[in-house]
Amino acid sequence: MNIHILSLFPEMFTGVFNSSILKKAQEKNEATINVVNFRDYSGNKHHQVDDYPYGGGAGMVLKPEPIFNAIEALPPSKGPSRRIILLCPQGERFTQKKAEELAREEELVFICGHYEGYDERIREHLVTDEISIGDFVLTGGELAAMTVVDSVVRLLPNVLGNAESHEKDSFSTGLLEHPHYTRPVEFRGHTVPDVLMSGNHAAIEKWRKEESLKRTFMRRPDLLERIELTSDEERLLKEIKG
Amino acid sequence: MNIHILSLFPEMFTGVFNSSILKKAQEKNEATINVVNFRDYSGNKHHQVDDYPYGGGAGMVLKPEPIFNAIEALPPSKGPSRRIILLCPQGERFTQKKAEELAREEELVFICGHYEGYDERIREHLVTDEISIGDFVLTGGELAAMTVVDSVVRLLPNVLGNAESHEKDSFSTGLLEHPHYTRPVEFRGHTVPDVLMSGNHAAIEKWRKEESLKRTFMRRPDLLERIELTSDEERLLKEIKG
Repeated sequence: MNIHILSLFPEMFTGVFNSSILKKAQEKNEATINVVNFRDYSGNKHHQVDDYPYGGGAGMVLKPEPIFNAIEALPPSKGPSRRIILLCPQGERFTQKKAEELAREEELVFICGHYEGYDERIREHLVTDEISIGDFVLTGGELAAMTVVDSVVRLLPNVLGNAESHEKDSFSTGLLEHPHYTRPVEFRGHTVPDVLMSGNHAAIEKWRKEESLKRTFMRRPDLLERIELTSDEERLLKEIKG
Repeated sequence: MNIHILSLFPEMFTGVFNSSILKKAQEKNEATINVVNFRDYSGNKHHQVDDYPYGGGAGMVLKPEPIFNAIEALPPSKGPSRRIILLCPQGERFTQKKAEELAREEELVFICGHYEGYDERIREHLVTDEISIGDFVLTGGELAAMTVVDSVVRLLPNVLGNAESHEKDSFSTGLLEHPHYTRPVEFRGHTVPDVLMSGNHAAIEKWRKEESLKRTFMRRPDLLERIELTSDEERLLKEIKG
């Protein structure tokens, strides 16, 4: 997968893209990541990328030219099409399902804004997707882009090792994960539940399923409405609601 | 505000914390950020921080000792209390309201996990808050911590300049923002709406309110259910639904 990122702060990405899974994905040639400073494409001698909003008001607005120019200067797309993603609070809420969809693409371009907002013509005539990572406001789109890239790249083939398997991720089953315990058996008087030490695999499986359902019911009942439960799960949930 | 971050990948934070608003906040002494590698507090000679899950299964689980030890080694809290925040997909969904709440604290501690998950005793006996930035899975808690820190720190006094004013942020009004336009008036045949060039402030205000309501209605009708609209807004919304 080829990833291009347009940002006024390319230095923000270095630490994240050179660590952990994102580093590994690039070393294994599963992903290339190219960060472009769109100030270099301003098209004016003062390298100006923003200007006052028409109609007045606080804040500066990102001009259309630098972003159009920067995208047109990218190397030709390898895939049949190119997803051009604007990170903004007004966008579609990012979910694991969207991560899975984007993980099937050959090329993703991310536009990271700063300041008050983007000239609307960028939204209308350039981008294919608008994504928001949540109902909160960030200084810029950079952290949102890193977040989307991280969640997408870890789904690419050969990227995750056994230590980070994604088969039982929260959200991939539609339920929140059950509790985990590791050594020591007793830590400051708090012990591991007996069932996990029992060696009884069926009992362990049942406990985990129950805890997963219980946690989802307590914390995120909205998730239960979106999935089809098995009859076993329905029965367990009825007991939990008790 | 004092911020402490526990992570196995401290180098991930450098680019983000030394740029833009987060850099400025530290230079102005509005925030201090201290990143701690909790591997240094493993309490064992192999510096082991994770281990196999009791009950079997894929993935590794973060042990309780290194995280308890790292938090206990922090300098004494400056405030009356210390918020200890676990980043995890099972947590409370992060919102602008939570950012505003955390911005009033004197000290925040973030725990960033990696691998399959945390030993449940960390959750039960150490943390005060569990936060999720959304329904998607990340390689670790680092990007979630950076996201929360960014959204909180930009709300601290004296941090934002005029170019980044947060008074009209999306979510602070409960509505999505209206479109923005800046120069040039015509870009590749696409022009700025006449009203924004009219100099008629009342008409501009009305257009912006209408566009803001329209965008929220089209993209995020759920937000409209959570706020009290003025009678003017109710009337505009009725026209939009028309």
